[in-house]
Amino acid sequence: MSKEFDVLVIGGGPGGYVAAIRAAQLGFKTACCESNPYADPKGEPRLGGTCLNVGCIPSKALLHTSHLFEEAGHGFEAQGITVGTPKIDVAKMIARKSGIVDQLTGGIKGLFKKNKVTLLNGHGSFVAQAGEGWQVKVGDEVVTAKQVIVATGSKARHLPGIPVDNKIVCDNVGALDIDAVPKKLAIIGAGVIGLEMGSVWRRLGADVTILEAMPDFLAAADLDVAKEALKVFTKQGLKLQLGVKIGEVKAAKKGVSIAYTDKDGAEQKLDADRLIVSVGRVPNTDGLNAEAVGLKLNDRGMIEVDGHCRTNLPGVWAVGDVVRGPMLAHKAMEEAVMVAELMAGQAGHCNFDTVPWVIYTSPEIAWVGKTEQQLKGEGVAYKVGKIPFLANGRALGMGETTGFVKMIADAATDRILGVHIIGAGASELISEAVVAMEFAGCSEDLARICHAHPTLSEVVHEAALACDKRPLHF
Amino acid sequence: MSKEFDVLVIGGGPGGYVAAIRAAQLGFKTACCESNPYADPKGEPRLGGTCLNVGCIPSKALLHTSHLFEEAGHGFEAQGITVGTPKIDVAKMIARKSGIVDQLTGGIKGLFKKNKVTLLNGHGSFVAQAGEGWQVKVGDEVVTAKQVIVATGSKARHLPGIPVDNKIVCDNVGALDIDAVPKKLAIIGAGVIGLEMGSVWRRLGADVTILEAMPDFLAAADLDVAKEALKVFTKQGLKLQLGVKIGEVKAAKKGVSIAYTDKDGAEQKLDADRLIVSVGRVPNTDGLNAEAVGLKLNDRGMIEVDGHCRTNLPGVWAVGDVVRGPMLAHKAMEEAVMVAELMAGQAGHCNFDTVPWVIYTSPEIAWVGKTEQQLKGEGVAYKVGKIPFLANGRALGMGETTGFVKMIADAATDRILGVHIIGAGASELISEAVVAMEFAGCSEDLARICHAHPTLSEVVHEAALACDKRPLHF
Repeated sequence: MSKEFDVLVIGGGPGGYVAAIRAAQLGFKTACCESNPYADPKGEPRLGGTCLNVGCIPSKALLHTSHLFEEAGHGFEAQGITVGTPKIDVAKMIARKSGIVDQLTGGIKGLFKKNKVTLLNGHGSFVAQAGEGWQVKVGDEVVTAKQVIVATGSKARHLPGIPVDNKIVCDNVGALDIDAVPKKLAIIGAGVIGLEMGSVWRRLGADVTILEAMPDFLAAADLDVAKEALKVFTKQGLKLQLGVKIGEVKAAKKGVSIAYTDKDGAEQKLDADRLIVSVGRVPNTDGLNAEAVGLKLNDRGMIEVDGHCRTNLPGVWAVGDVVRGPMLAHKAMEEAVMVAELMAGQAGHCNFDTVPWVIYTSPEIAWVGKTEQQLKGEGVAYKVGKIPFLANGRALGMGETTGFVKMIADAATDRILGVHIIGAGASELISEAVVAMEFAGCSEDLARICHAHPTLSEVVHEAALACDKRPLHF
Repeated sequence: MSKEFDVLVIGGGPGGYVAAIRAAQLGFKTACCESNPYADPKGEPRLGGTCLNVGCIPSKALLHTSHLFEEAGHGFEAQGITVGTPKIDVAKMIARKSGIVDQLTGGIKGLFKKNKVTLLNGHGSFVAQAGEGWQVKVGDEVVTAKQVIVATGSKARHLPGIPVDNKIVCDNVGALDIDAVPKKLAIIGAGVIGLEMGSVWRRLGADVTILEAMPDFLAAADLDVAKEALKVFTKQGLKLQLGVKIGEVKAAKKGVSIAYTDKDGAEQKLDADRLIVSVGRVPNTDGLNAEAVGLKLNDRGMIEVDGHCRTNLPGVWAVGDVVRGPMLAHKAMEEAVMVAELMAGQAGHCNFDTVPWVIYTSPEIAWVGKTEQQLKGEGVAYKVGKIPFLANGRALGMGETTGFVKMIADAATDRILGVHIIGAGASELISEAVVAMEFAGCSEDLARICHAHPTLSEVVHEAALACDKRPLHF
């Protein structure tokens, strides 16, 4: 017997579960299908996707623990706190992380119940169009839905010739379950995941080398931020090699050996206990049976959608990592809400120009809007206000004075075009910039808004004042 | 010989130094006078006022150190970090704090130089009107200025019969220089200073009792926040006694004994090593010679001003703690900028409805706008969105899941009327609420703005969604 729904969401990650909840809130009879890629012991589908199970959430738990560990070993003495040499119990740290993941994945199941979303256990793949709707195979049964939202997410890109066993050679999944501090850790790829995982294990005592193929560091970030980050991370002890070409990788039982050509063309070899491969992610479309229904993908395997996440098929939508745009959980969630509301005849909308980016290193990095190099490339006349954390009382109190806030505003209209932060609390500070930009605010607006004293947000305030060359505290 | 200025600012605290810098930026020949109340070893005026020298900044440094100390002793184990029993070197902690203060006060002197503000060493008091300006005595000399900004701040209110020696019996000044962890610490007054200082010394091991005359805890805060705070602080071990009547206080060389009547009318006695008296602050107007020029004060000694900080005298302005409104550094700074810009013929303006409040306990407390009880009293129809930190992935990662965000919006227009936060990072989270309220934003606006994942600011986002009964994660 075929089950029938108004809406079927394929995939239970941030895009999928949010789409399902919002669709159900709007009165649709909604189901969400999820397979069991994260080895749930009971064989049940685990909701939350990569982000919750093997991404944003567990990495933040490890980043927090390792940050405290480093503070205890290096930051406490200056504050007058004496502790013995700190020791890390990796198993306990990992168990705490896994407990948080379990709590949150369980929480989403609770939200499904509360919002009356039917959870289906199994991988979803298209069968055929059925009247005005679609047949989708979920596990062994075929489900019919008037509308389908594809939210199948992404998986780690692997490198040819470098098999990932998630023990010695890890992608994001294994990187979060390493069971002892490696003496030497190699990472291929200096993107968000590489930097975050590199930071975790460096803080806990590993000798970390990151090999990056691109000659520029953090090319997506504002150039000033990228420069500062490279300086700071290097000073912290991360060994960053840019512009390398990876050669043969030999993995054995107890370690791995990576041959590479460095930026000067010299042949090099790096021996390490573990290797993390973090060279980007690819959309999960291979199991969708897209070709059976004519769902259009682009040449990189992404589902083609318009600005409202409509695919080429009527009643089929796609959101999150499986479509164009940055692979960020919050971008997926915004698209998910938009699609559910559009299905309900509401005016759903996503402003992709105000999606913030965050890297949870220490100091944190966050930005929203255009970088200075983008604006230069576009020939836009702009002004810049840049203020360091060094003069901020709260930052001094915390002993975290590295970094700056850089605000870029239109030279003619003063409208804020971008805000780029490297510094303590950047992940939270960025939200007022996003809000201001959503209201089409000017630097003058933020300059005239009262900021609590003493807070890190005062650096944002000063950066706004500095756009008009009238900072008060710099 | 009399020195002549366009603008003289009396007092070098946050209101004063900011007024002086902004006035100088606007082209006024500006001086700022400050006496030496904070015992600078060279006898030079120390800028930054109470806030920087003996208030916000040093307290945040101690709060940070004591927070880490408590984490090391109680929070580390669950994360897998093992350290010996942490020990605190109070002298080193205090020295670090004093170093931060020195750095920042020195920094303001640098800002004066950069902005060409003349710093005068000495207490300022009015002499007489002089043509279109005013004569003010600063130390031994008389200065003439076309316009005067009074920014003399406030000092701790003391209780009759309880002399403060800042050794055994302290106000905010001595409380920041206690040289050893008291076994038993008594605090009179459960306001911001009492709670912050109580938290510092409790974390470091003191047995802390706070005696509060009012029957309600944190009456200025939203009732839900105050209730949660009372529960949390009590659980942390702060002994809070409300509705008490303080009787005789006997201070000796090695301790202090406080007689009081508890809320049930029973006579009680509290013995402690130290006592901190934090029962509010009074404006510094007694040395101003206000009567000589007819500067109007109110019956509580505050200078009377209008919404633009104009006093009853032409060309005389007053800002900060010495005038009506909350005694908050950032409110003083906003008034300071407004006054300087009004003097320059610009459209200076302060929105007192969007001045945020922060209490730096753990969890932090912050709010902006109206409380629920205020709105009830005013008969305004409102709706509430309230979301706990418990379900937030970042909060779980940090192990700081106490508290909630409560958003209140107008029932008819949806305009945000107040945002009340108790929880990790509240001091920084409040800024997006302030920005949204300054743009006359609705809960719907914040609900539709992308918030980075995983961040604490997502709890603000969910509270906005909850105003419309459509939270996604609760």
